[in-house]
Amino acid sequence: MALLIVAPNRDISIWKKIIQENDPELEYYVWPDCERKSEVVAAVAWNHPIGCFQDYPNIELISSMGAGVDHIMKDTTIDPEIKITRIVDSVLTISMTNYVLMAVLNYHKQFFKYQKDKDSKVWHQQVNPEIDLSIGIMGMGVLGQDVALKLNDLGFKVFGYSNTKKIVSRVKSFAGQSEIQAFLNEINMLICMLPLTSSTRGILNLSFFRKMQKGSIIINVARGALLIEEDLLIAIEEGYISSAFLDVFQTEPLPKDHAFWKHPDIFITPHIASVTNPYAAVPQILNNYKRLLNKEPLQNLIDRNKEY
Amino acid sequence: MALLIVAPNRDISIWKKIIQENDPELEYYVWPDCERKSEVVAAVAWNHPIGCFQDYPNIELISSMGAGVDHIMKDTTIDPEIKITRIVDSVLTISMTNYVLMAVLNYHKQFFKYQKDKDSKVWHQQVNPEIDLSIGIMGMGVLGQDVALKLNDLGFKVFGYSNTKKIVSRVKSFAGQSEIQAFLNEINMLICMLPLTSSTRGILNLSFFRKMQKGSIIINVARGALLIEEDLLIAIEEGYISSAFLDVFQTEPLPKDHAFWKHPDIFITPHIASVTNPYAAVPQILNNYKRLLNKEPLQNLIDRNKEY
Repeated sequence: MALLIVAPNRDISIWKKIIQENDPELEYYVWPDCERKSEVVAAVAWNHPIGCFQDYPNIELISSMGAGVDHIMKDTTIDPEIKITRIVDSVLTISMTNYVLMAVLNYHKQFFKYQKDKDSKVWHQQVNPEIDLSIGIMGMGVLGQDVALKLNDLGFKVFGYSNTKKIVSRVKSFAGQSEIQAFLNEINMLICMLPLTSSTRGILNLSFFRKMQKGSIIINVARGALLIEEDLLIAIEEGYISSAFLDVFQTEPLPKDHAFWKHPDIFITPHIASVTNPYAAVPQILNNYKRLLNKEPLQNLIDRNKEY
Repeated sequence: MALLIVAPNRDISIWKKIIQENDPELEYYVWPDCERKSEVVAAVAWNHPIGCFQDYPNIELISSMGAGVDHIMKDTTIDPEIKITRIVDSVLTISMTNYVLMAVLNYHKQFFKYQKDKDSKVWHQQVNPEIDLSIGIMGMGVLGQDVALKLNDLGFKVFGYSNTKKIVSRVKSFAGQSEIQAFLNEINMLICMLPLTSSTRGILNLSFFRKMQKGSIIINVARGALLIEEDLLIAIEEGYISSAFLDVFQTEPLPKDHAFWKHPDIFITPHIASVTNPYAAVPQILNNYKRLLNKEPLQNLIDRNKEY
C-alpha cells in the first residue's frame, strides 16, 4: 500500500518534510518516480498531467492539495468510482477572507482614488468619503459564508447566491438560475467564490454583466475560467462594470501581452489570495489515507455529480 | 437661552437642517452672527478661533462636533469651569475601524508590492504571500478597542497600550511610560489612535522610533500633531520604519512641497478615515444641551485634566 504525490512544477519539499514528521513509516512515491505502481491506492494531486492515473490500477482516492478540485474533475479519464477529497483549512479560510476584505475596503474607502490624488499632490476630501456598497457573494460554501459573516461584522449589507439556498444569519440568500436577476438587482459589488464546474465555467460573461447595475465592481478570487476576460473588458467599456479586482486568470501566469496589465480599472494579484498551508493539509491527507485503509468514511469528500 | 455653532471654514448646512428636524423651536446662532451674546449658554465647536468664547460670558458647555476635543483643549482662554463633551458614534467607530483594517490588510497581503509588480508586468507569487503582523494599538479608547477586537477576529495578534491599563479580551495590554519598551518589543506594526493632549503631542518622534523593531510599519489615524514628521523620514532612512500609512498631518491640507507626497513608502489620505456623521452627532448635542438646561448629568463628558 502506498501513497503517490503528483504535483509537477510545484516545490513539495515542505510537504515531504511534514509527511516525514507526521508519519515516518509512510510509504509514498513522488510522481513520476514510482516502481511499484500497483501498490498505489491513493494519490495527492495538484495540476496532474491528464491521464496519469491510468498507470495506477488500484487507486481508490485522490486528495486535492487545496480547497478546489477542478484540476482533478477536468480529467475525464479518472474512473468515476475513485473518491475525491479536498482540503478544508481554517487558516486557508482566514487567508481568503482577509484578501476579500482588503479588496472590499479599498473600494469602500476610495483608496485607489486617493492613491491617484497622491501622485498628483491633490488633497481632496470627498463629501462622501465612503462608497456605499451592497455586496453579493456568489458561492456560499465554507469560504463564501466566512466572507459573508465578516463583511456583516464590518457593517456591510451582504447578499448570497448559491446553487442550493444557504441559510446564513443576516444574509439574504438567493439560489438557482431563476433568482439570479433578483440577486443582481440588490448589489453593486459582486464577489465570485464559486467552484469551477462544467456549469459555472464562463458564468461571468457579457450577458451576465449586462444584468448588473451600471458601475458595479467585481472581485474574483475563485478560478480564472469562471470569467470570460474579453467580456469583462467590454462590460467596463459599456459601463456595467466600473472596476475589477482579480486574483485568478484564464492563463496563469498572466501572459505579458494581456490587456489586464495596463488597464487602469483592473487590479491584479498573482493568485495569492489564499495559499494552502501544508501544515494543515498534510494531517488531513494522511488521516483520509488511513481512513481509506481502515475502510472508514472519508472526510471532505466531494460529490462527483456536483463537481465540488 | 441659546446655542452657538462655531465652525468656520466648514459647511454646516446639513447640521442646520438636522437641528431644524430635531428641534424646530431651538434658538441657536451661527458664529460670528449673534446679537445677544449673553443668552448663549452652550456652544458646538470645530476649529473655533482661539479666544472667541471670551465674548460669551454665560457659556457653561462646549460640545465638540467630533470624537476629538484637542481643538477645544488647546484654547487656554476657556474657563476651566466650562464643561466639554465629545461625540461617541457607532457609525464613526465602524468607519475608523474599516479604515484601519484596510491599511493593515494592504500590508498583510503585500498589496503595494503587487501594485508595483503590475506596473512592470511582473507575475511573482511570494513564497510567503502574507506578512506576519504583530500589531500594537496605542490609545485603547472606544475606537482603539473596536479596532483591537476586529483585528483579533481576523486572526491577528494584537497588543494594546494606553495611559491606564485597559482589559480587552484576547489583547495583551500595556500601560504607562515604564511599559512602552515592552510593548514595542512585541510588535512590528503600530497603530496610533491616541487622543492629542499636552503629554501625547509629538510622542511619535525619533527616539520613540528607535525603540521599535527594525522595519516596523506605522499607521496614524488620530491627529497629525502626535507625529514629528521630519523624524519619521529619518526613521525610514535608518530602517526603523519601513512604511507609514497616514490620514492626519501637522498641517492640513498637506502643503504642496511636503516630502510625504512623493515618498514611495508613505501612503496618505486626506483626513477621511472617519468623518462625523451629523445625523448621529446632532441628537447627542441637543440631548446634552437639554440636560444642561435641566441640570442633569451630561453624556460623553471629557476629563479636563486628562484632556480627553
